[in-house]
Amino acid sequence: MTLMGDVNTFINGDYTTVEKAYLHIEDRGMLFGDGIYEFARCYVDGIPFQMEEHLQRLKNSAKAIDLELPYTGPEIKDIVGELLEKCGAKQAGIYIQATRGLNMPRTHHFPRVVKPSFFIIVRELEPEPPEFMVDGVKAILLPDQRWTRCDIKSLNLLPNILAKEKAVREGAYEAIFYRDFGVTEGSSSSVFAVFDGRIYTTPAGEWILPGVTSHTVVQLASRAGYSVHFEFIPREKLYKADELFITSSRLDIVPVSTLYDTPIGSGKPGPLTRALKEAFQAFARGQA
Amino acid sequence: MTLMGDVNTFINGDYTTVEKAYLHIEDRGMLFGDGIYEFARCYVDGIPFQMEEHLQRLKNSAKAIDLELPYTGPEIKDIVGELLEKCGAKQAGIYIQATRGLNMPRTHHFPRVVKPSFFIIVRELEPEPPEFMVDGVKAILLPDQRWTRCDIKSLNLLPNILAKEKAVREGAYEAIFYRDFGVTEGSSSSVFAVFDGRIYTTPAGEWILPGVTSHTVVQLASRAGYSVHFEFIPREKLYKADELFITSSRLDIVPVSTLYDTPIGSGKPGPLTRALKEAFQAFARGQA
Repeated sequence: MTLMGDVNTFINGDYTTVEKAYLHIEDRGMLFGDGIYEFARCYVDGIPFQMEEHLQRLKNSAKAIDLELPYTGPEIKDIVGELLEKCGAKQAGIYIQATRGLNMPRTHHFPRVVKPSFFIIVRELEPEPPEFMVDGVKAILLPDQRWTRCDIKSLNLLPNILAKEKAVREGAYEAIFYRDFGVTEGSSSSVFAVFDGRIYTTPAGEWILPGVTSHTVVQLASRAGYSVHFEFIPREKLYKADELFITSSRLDIVPVSTLYDTPIGSGKPGPLTRALKEAFQAFARGQA
Repeated sequence: MTLMGDVNTFINGDYTTVEKAYLHIEDRGMLFGDGIYEFARCYVDGIPFQMEEHLQRLKNSAKAIDLELPYTGPEIKDIVGELLEKCGAKQAGIYIQATRGLNMPRTHHFPRVVKPSFFIIVRELEPEPPEFMVDGVKAILLPDQRWTRCDIKSLNLLPNILAKEKAVREGAYEAIFYRDFGVTEGSSSSVFAVFDGRIYTTPAGEWILPGVTSHTVVQLASRAGYSVHFEFIPREKLYKADELFITSSRLDIVPVSTLYDTPIGSGKPGPLTRALKEAFQAFARGQA
């Protein structure tokens, strides 16, 4: 357990407890959402999973908004290692955020001297609810109102959190976004559908985040002999999928068993979803 | 002058100096840009201009993201009055921000108990650069990459600030956004064009912020006998305008004299723009 008062946070050079971690109100993260983030987790006690991939995406996001990260990849890995040791979290979640720093007084354009703010929080994760793999979860469908650069993992998450809140209020776990041309992704997940034993997911590009977990799922599925197709699925077609699941770095694979109140396939986690979940967990735990 | 150390900030119930104003890193403003803001200013020493209109828009923005403001309009006006008195700013700028508060540990959905964070900063404004009304400013044109709810004055401003920075790097003052169907607005302003003595601006709706200043400009122009048309101007047509100007609460009317390096009209502030600027300033100073 991460306890209140544990040193579990790194902020701008200092190790501290998250309760004591503050930033100025004129930090550009606070004023403009002018920053980026990553979330990674451990499957093996104290060992971050796919940290390289997360750091690469962090670098890509930083580059896309023209932000120079104040720490290198190896430095960030060292800080994370230090935090894991200090707070003792085993099945830890690792949250990393960088912003364009203080801008006092506020200006839209970048300040003359940019000194990014950077923090990492490490915490023990709640275990995955066991019913997820028994019953699956409910999802809803909402129009994708986001900007055109969803490939950047930025702090501009208002459409995402409003959609997630709407889902929760409807008793659902996730909101799946669609545009005119089809399904894009979930408010905090990637989306996969199965039709006739083939797996479909959204093509990479500016409409979706390049999911670290979804990429691994594609690789594991291909390795297991399934064909994976990168296509925008029309939203009406989603109801007719044999299986539907979402992926994220937090909970890898979560089966979606109902869209609103319509059961997907059998209305229970399907065989392909269960097989992939097993393969993913074995891979993440280093057993495959 | 607002001096370093002046009490010019109100934050979550306390009056302080802006240098001492901090919020937790897990404030939803910092994590998600989950908040809204307003900016108003004084034209007459110590008297906020069109505060009612700004407070109404703040309420509208709050409602749109399902956030309950922790203070009423009259309370906010009292706080602003108190700050103006404490710091002695005359031609003051007033920045107001509300977020969905602390969310520790971070979740996408709203926390069970929402306690919004709320702050106001008051500062003396730099005077308008006198060359603006002599030479006008340069603008550039960029594709509008923002989300579909630009009518909400939210903290999700990454596309805006990236565009503004691009403008500044090209020696311009503003970036004007366009979509397939025409010009929407500037990165921090509304856009007006004059063709054959008629004034054109973007129709209200979800593609643009309902500008407090642009609304007043429309009223003053109508009162002066000009016809105002609410239409999306095709972006190529913008280069052929007789006059072009942008409006904002910060600097009311600013003439745009070149788009990239193409002069607009005479390449100087036009007669209609100058007349409206004069009318606006007289109105704002209570002389009309």
